[in-house]
Amino acid sequence: METPITPTEPPHTFAECTRVAVPMIQVLGRISGRWSLYVIMALMRGPMRFSELRRQVHGVSQKMLTQTLRELEEDGIVHRTVTPIIPPRVDYELTDMGRELQAPLTAISEWTERNGDRVARARERYAAAKGI
Amino acid sequence: METPITPTEPPHTFAECTRVAVPMIQVLGRISGRWSLYVIMALMRGPMRFSELRRQVHGVSQKMLTQTLRELEEDGIVHRTVTPIIPPRVDYELTDMGRELQAPLTAISEWTERNGDRVARARERYAAAKGI
Repeated sequence: METPITPTEPPHTFAECTRVAVPMIQVLGRISGRWSLYVIMALMRGPMRFSELRRQVHGVSQKMLTQTLRELEEDGIVHRTVTPIIPPRVDYELTDMGRELQAPLTAISEWTERNGDRVARARERYAAAKGI
Repeated sequence: METPITPTEPPHTFAECTRVAVPMIQVLGRISGRWSLYVIMALMRGPMRFSELRRQVHGVSQKMLTQTLRELEEDGIVHRTVTPIIPPRVDYELTDMGRELQAPLTAISEWTERNGDRVARARERYAAAKGI
């Protein structure tokens, strides 16, 4: 049986590293998209209609919101329900898998709360040292 | 005093959402870079010289490894020590802030271990449903 590799137990071979890192890069790439994180965070408050979601995620265009929701639906992170009334009603909600993103997002958010300023200061120091 | 907003307590206004999401997007963007995650994971095992790191991160070119390390150094995630011997010896190690990435990376890795297959299956179902 394959042992799960997490950064708690750093990978020791390239194969292990790839097995862990490649899917993580895909997940990170998807949730770090320009609007995905806003949409996921908004939907953590509960199911929403398209129009409500668009009000919550200020500045997103109809086209970008549609595309973001389609990608999240494709990945199984968001579920879309169409109610066949006139006009049709479309609701979006996080799937179980989407809701489970709360733990990693909370951990990243905590790291950012703690280190966001340090990153900014490190960049300034680096720029000063290199005379950029 | 501002209350930290984490996805545990979803943001209720756009300003709150932006305050949390924008730095998170930056962090995610940086650690999800093509090679950054490999380098961070390799350095979780301990300090390494450039040549050792290059052996650990198979497939990375000298140029890409240099660039990745420079970005991580700029963000204060990696620390670079030059020992002035001949030839000069250069060691890389994670800073405290870099080591603290272990918690979020572990959480993401656990999510991926649990849900990686579900993402793949969701994509297949989505493609089948849409006749792609």
